[in-house]
Amino acid sequence: MPETEALRATAAAPHATSPVALDAMGGDNAPHEIVAGAVQAVREHGIGVVLVGAPRPLQEALSRHDATTEIPIVRAEEALAMDEGALASLRRPRSSIAVACHLVRRGEASAVVSAGSTAGIVATGKLRLKGQQGVLRPAIAVALPTLPTPTVLLDAGANAEVKPEMLVQFAHLGAAYAETTLRIEDPRIGLLTIGSEPEKGNKLVKRAHELLSAAPGLNFTGNIEGHDLLTGAVNVIVTDGFTGNVALKTMEGSVRYAFAELRGAIQESPVARVGGMLQRGRIRRLQRRLDPEVHGGAVLLGLNGTVVIAHGSSQATGVSAACVLAAELARTGVVARVGERLAATHRPHRLW
Amino acid sequence: MPETEALRATAAAPHATSPVALDAMGGDNAPHEIVAGAVQAVREHGIGVVLVGAPRPLQEALSRHDATTEIPIVRAEEALAMDEGALASLRRPRSSIAVACHLVRRGEASAVVSAGSTAGIVATGKLRLKGQQGVLRPAIAVALPTLPTPTVLLDAGANAEVKPEMLVQFAHLGAAYAETTLRIEDPRIGLLTIGSEPEKGNKLVKRAHELLSAAPGLNFTGNIEGHDLLTGAVNVIVTDGFTGNVALKTMEGSVRYAFAELRGAIQESPVARVGGMLQRGRIRRLQRRLDPEVHGGAVLLGLNGTVVIAHGSSQATGVSAACVLAAELARTGVVARVGERLAATHRPHRLW
Repeated sequence: MPETEALRATAAAPHATSPVALDAMGGDNAPHEIVAGAVQAVREHGIGVVLVGAPRPLQEALSRHDATTEIPIVRAEEALAMDEGALASLRRPRSSIAVACHLVRRGEASAVVSAGSTAGIVATGKLRLKGQQGVLRPAIAVALPTLPTPTVLLDAGANAEVKPEMLVQFAHLGAAYAETTLRIEDPRIGLLTIGSEPEKGNKLVKRAHELLSAAPGLNFTGNIEGHDLLTGAVNVIVTDGFTGNVALKTMEGSVRYAFAELRGAIQESPVARVGGMLQRGRIRRLQRRLDPEVHGGAVLLGLNGTVVIAHGSSQATGVSAACVLAAELARTGVVARVGERLAATHRPHRLW
Repeated sequence: MPETEALRATAAAPHATSPVALDAMGGDNAPHEIVAGAVQAVREHGIGVVLVGAPRPLQEALSRHDATTEIPIVRAEEALAMDEGALASLRRPRSSIAVACHLVRRGEASAVVSAGSTAGIVATGKLRLKGQQGVLRPAIAVALPTLPTPTVLLDAGANAEVKPEMLVQFAHLGAAYAETTLRIEDPRIGLLTIGSEPEKGNKLVKRAHELLSAAPGLNFTGNIEGHDLLTGAVNVIVTDGFTGNVALKTMEGSVRYAFAELRGAIQESPVARVGGMLQRGRIRRLQRRLDPEVHGGAVLLGLNGTVVIAHGSSQATGVSAACVLAAELARTGVVARVGERLAATHRPHRLW
């Protein structure tokens, strides 16, 4: 496979329109579903994709889709296993996720997508792309499926232990995501805690409330609680990575549970079953909208490059959605916007 | 109203069959819905109830139900407002919730029920009933509507800041609730965190994992994550009051959201609407099972007396369910079981 030529053709394009570097070896269903997702992203969404991984199995997988000439491959002989954590990223400088990061660093790809282990992706991203200037800690942002626009929740799990200052930065990271990719003007920021009054919460949150209230450039609207996650009360929800991860997984599990219970209720009686059949299509569409695998994935913000973390169990559709999201993040310039926001915090009187 | 005579008649009965002391002045819908809930508890569930509050409005409310001779009133001229917090409980020694606690202390009531402000109830309960011997911190436990048995989640919000040793105690408190009132033998305990491996989480949770693993008398099965809240993977979920409160409210909000979306989907198309009508009864029943107001309320564990915290917005049915739960907690001896468990931790080789 003429990898380098294939790449050169795309590398000449401006950065944001460079292809997405897709880690083809990460995820429970790698490489077949990853490759199928790449094909879907290219053919159905017109996204440029480069597969990063072991050439032989990728060639094979591509040929099943008749796509060997459509999608280039960049060689990476190693891969991080799903159960490998942060340390493995140091031991494997030529892993598929590390090579994907290098492509972004060299401007040959616009963004990285991986369905590998979150810990491995975060560690490799930090190591290979480095944090943006002034960023204390990169954070994982997730777009919750609220209407009319999604709600950004961060940190969803990159930092189990944080300081109040980091929560203020997370607000900027999330605001940049909302402003660029989600096209939300002057996003409203809420702090996730256990009561609406400023003094409600633990020490971390009380101090963060003070800092957020005083921070220029942030439309901080105060505290929000767990039941506000899906009401669209704010555009960006700021929290530490421990609480955010628990809240996100609780939300996913609860929605799944409600639908399963509903299916049970529908199947219980013949009359209800007829009713259920009549609405199956709508319920399925609703379920898809709420399914995290359908609407993209998590975004690692604060690095010198865009990284999208797809669910480990992603199938083709989830991988394709993650590629679309990654291309959109790159096209709308979320990294640059984070840079502008953080630079402005050092000279508050100039921009705001 | 011959309050004291009315009480004397019940006070002679054994402690656990004494009436429930219901704070008639606490909650958004006090006193009318509280009184209506008392009438429901007495007439439909055979629970003994004493109303605590301002006699005149309570008499009036009772007479609307023709229940003035059925339900005694104990005078308390003061009440904590919904927005009053912990300090108010010191300033108001004769508030309805404080008087209700005194009835339990004096053995004239088996348990306290209040739909007042959680902070006020917790502070008053601690002050008037005192913590059980050896209890570092009382905790709020909630029974999540899993099948076949509920899952106890604690702490749901009493302690925003905790130490690892407290989480071990919470496990005992939750296990006592599961063993007695929920009739679960050797309850499985899980620690809420952000990954299944022992080393996943923040400092608090990592240390708690070590302590729980080594603790005698606890069937600790390891870490659980947010999506396990409603799967019944464990019988007791241990967490700090900040995370637990966020998780609980996220769960409630997500289930509510899923149902609202579903209603929207059903109403969108005429065909689906017919289907929706056919199943309305089942969906309503399901929704009721998942509705926290229908299945009782939160329990403040670790005090010398049973305290049930009903939702602030409770209506009659919610109040009645809270009285039933309180009576059941008292009847099955949750306070005594907590005492046994904590005493046993000091002599691990005798009981286990």
